[in-house]
Amino acid sequence: MSGFFRFTPLANALPSTVPFVGPEAIERARGRKVRARIGANESGFGPAPSVLKAIRERAGETWMYSDPENFELREALALHHGVSRENIAIGGGIDGLLGEIVRLVVEPGTPVVTSQGGYPTFNYHVNGYGGRLVTTPYVNDREDLDGLLSAAKREDAPLVYLANPDNPMGSWWDAGSVLSFARALPDRSLLILDEAYCETAPAGSTPAIDALIGQPNVLRMRTFSKAYGLAGARVGYAIGTLGNVQAFDKIRNHFGMARISTVAALAALEDQAYLRDVVEKIVLARDRITAIARQNGLSPLPSATNFVAIDCGSDGVHARAIVDGLMEHGIFIRMPGVAPLNRCIRVSVGPDADLDLFEAVLPKVLKAVR
Amino acid sequence: MSGFFRFTPLANALPSTVPFVGPEAIERARGRKVRARIGANESGFGPAPSVLKAIRERAGETWMYSDPENFELREALALHHGVSRENIAIGGGIDGLLGEIVRLVVEPGTPVVTSQGGYPTFNYHVNGYGGRLVTTPYVNDREDLDGLLSAAKREDAPLVYLANPDNPMGSWWDAGSVLSFARALPDRSLLILDEAYCETAPAGSTPAIDALIGQPNVLRMRTFSKAYGLAGARVGYAIGTLGNVQAFDKIRNHFGMARISTVAALAALEDQAYLRDVVEKIVLARDRITAIARQNGLSPLPSATNFVAIDCGSDGVHARAIVDGLMEHGIFIRMPGVAPLNRCIRVSVGPDADLDLFEAVLPKVLKAVR
Repeated sequence: MSGFFRFTPLANALPSTVPFVGPEAIERARGRKVRARIGANESGFGPAPSVLKAIRERAGETWMYSDPENFELREALALHHGVSRENIAIGGGIDGLLGEIVRLVVEPGTPVVTSQGGYPTFNYHVNGYGGRLVTTPYVNDREDLDGLLSAAKREDAPLVYLANPDNPMGSWWDAGSVLSFARALPDRSLLILDEAYCETAPAGSTPAIDALIGQPNVLRMRTFSKAYGLAGARVGYAIGTLGNVQAFDKIRNHFGMARISTVAALAALEDQAYLRDVVEKIVLARDRITAIARQNGLSPLPSATNFVAIDCGSDGVHARAIVDGLMEHGIFIRMPGVAPLNRCIRVSVGPDADLDLFEAVLPKVLKAVR
Repeated sequence: MSGFFRFTPLANALPSTVPFVGPEAIERARGRKVRARIGANESGFGPAPSVLKAIRERAGETWMYSDPENFELREALALHHGVSRENIAIGGGIDGLLGEIVRLVVEPGTPVVTSQGGYPTFNYHVNGYGGRLVTTPYVNDREDLDGLLSAAKREDAPLVYLANPDNPMGSWWDAGSVLSFARALPDRSLLILDEAYCETAPAGSTPAIDALIGQPNVLRMRTFSKAYGLAGARVGYAIGTLGNVQAFDKIRNHFGMARISTVAALAALEDQAYLRDVVEKIVLARDRITAIARQNGLSPLPSATNFVAIDCGSDGVHARAIVDGLMEHGIFIRMPGVAPLNRCIRVSVGPDADLDLFEAVLPKVLKAVR
């Protein structure tokens, strides 16, 4: 039952790994059902009723491959953002798009700049193509724009990753700072600006689309997985120059999108009223998580996302004990992976019932951990 | 609006291309709606009603990422095939799995053996990783097992592709011949045995699962896209040794599966009664396409798949004219891409209405082409 012995040296050197353990795997390992799924930054508020209606009505189309040009969805997104269809590349969530752009840029040894403790799936892809991760620490729990810029220049790195708002800390920069950073980057460095959480960010923190649309060394990434509530559909998109969008066509799995997922994304985009409503709910849930944390003597960080990082005042061992303790009660949350971020736990927003449970259980877990 | 200028040399050398132009793109280019979609080897009979019911009932789960371990589906497939869950890797259709296995094996210059005119998407992935395609011609419209074996040995090729039954010709080998081929291959060559069409093949043409399950240089690929009628869901799987299955975990997009697609695949697998019914319909439709071809003086090839290749008695220009002529009437079919296979057109099965239209229009098109 061994494997084939002529995989590439790079493949042989890679571990069989997963950037995140799924809640289902935790359920199986722990023999305990998740009662509050507030760990993966999904939206427990779900997608719009109009989206569920579209999925149900058009389920019968599942026998057909999805349009490999993703024409309709790109057209709708172009209209939504005031750009051309040729500025939009569709992929299997931002995760899928990250894998593709890394493949286009990274060879064994290529330096890639990101923040220490930044998005693990990006790192997974960089490692998967043999890239060399160059990390710069967070400063005050924010990604350090100056540090990233220095590292990019010092390493002559062709790829730089920045999430704004950030995951796992929920922090953000104002649009002006992001713009200055993007414009200061050498044209030899391609910026992946991951804006998965932009819909829940405060006004003034997301640069206008047209501010960066002409810059060949910037790719912005968006998703239907967060505020739109469609994590399970796997639909993300990149916004960039024509040349960069066409580059995806060289390597992507053209027939890789699920047809009903595309239908769902289109319906979600059309229902901006629902998006506004759900963002209000997300903000309220964020405030509630913040309040619960404070009630328990913890220090919640400000958040522009659909989760709140909570400083538990100690180290990774302590935070891990809290994560594990909550799961003993069926509450699934996550935590940052590296110090000093891992003094925090990360709690995703969710409906009242989920947060009621979190509120009820957290004091017990903290008591047990102390 | 140009692109970033530091893509890898390999990426720069690749064209922006697509292995197949989708019917939607043809509709847009020709300004004509498809009335009979019988070109992409989808199943116009659709998935089982039980599958549509499952999609509709569980649409609300779309807010959650799918289990990255694909536990339930792998467990069900393992039970179905009498193997262990650890023998099953799930991917975004066979297309997605092909991309992954090529990535695991192919570096720039790696020789990869396939048939001349074989599955274009496999070739697309090989080119995408810089591999060197070594092709051997079809013999009597079948992939040439002896030729593939010789080429694999001669080139010391780490990767060999065989589809049984074959696409685009619909031809097949008996199970014994496939087994002999797989066992004769050097252990230095990994066989991708693409069995996308095995559900519609005659008895005795698909090797038993346990006949090859212990062989580390064989990976068998199956899909829910063909007989199961779920092309748009993008669910395929590979059956192989534990080591080979784990290799996918090194590079796959763990959170890449659409949750509802997995639900649909599970429901489809459970409804084997529907599968039996639909395979009967597929066989009848295949017979009908065969009869229509004969009525028109053409030479349909025997088929083990959900399509029929029809020898139109001339060359690729002639066949292309027929494909284009049919599309003028809204009938979408395809044809093989290289000589001498491209003397044929390739017509997928479909419901009666689709074949009625094909039957009515084909004589007119042939008359116009002559």
